[in-house]
Amino acid sequence: MRARVFVTLKPSVFDPQGRTIVEALHSLGHTEVGDVRQGKYFELDLNVESAAAAEALATEVSQQVLANPVIESFRLEVDSESKAGRS
Amino acid sequence: MRARVFVTLKPSVFDPQGRTIVEALHSLGHTEVGDVRQGKYFELDLNVESAAAAEALATEVSQQVLANPVIESFRLEVDSESKAGRS
Repeated sequence: MRARVFVTLKPSVFDPQGRTIVEALHSLGHTEVGDVRQGKYFELDLNVESAAAAEALATEVSQQVLANPVIESFRLEVDSESKAGRS
Repeated sequence: MRARVFVTLKPSVFDPQGRTIVEALHSLGHTEVGDVRQGKYFELDLNVESAAAAEALATEVSQQVLANPVIESFRLEVDSESKAGRS
């Protein structure tokens, strides 16, 4: 089972890396770019049976290790092998 | 218009950061975690009119600045304001 975790800085936290990217893009002529926020992306291969177990494990791992809950939030998606859509 | 870009190391490239995360998770008792790959995630706010223009701009920016095409690949998604599903 594969889980994908997206970790982003909370909106109230200043993102100097994103700011630097915006300035670089403006200096390259891409002035249509208004704002950039950088985050982290993780793909986890989990040896569990069900999508529910994968989601529970990925949530625990994200809270413990992948994200710093003081300044970051995370979102996750679980794929089953068949890549079924989740409603 | 918002674009989201996911940059990952190509599968053939060794990911020491992901490897370290797997070892940390195993030492914390999460032995169900088989593999972790770490990538980067960007949210771009683009001042363009159409989803097609946003996609073209995000692709150019990703190739030029956000990803290193020698060792990384990227995938992107464009949201319109209404967050319409894309088929």
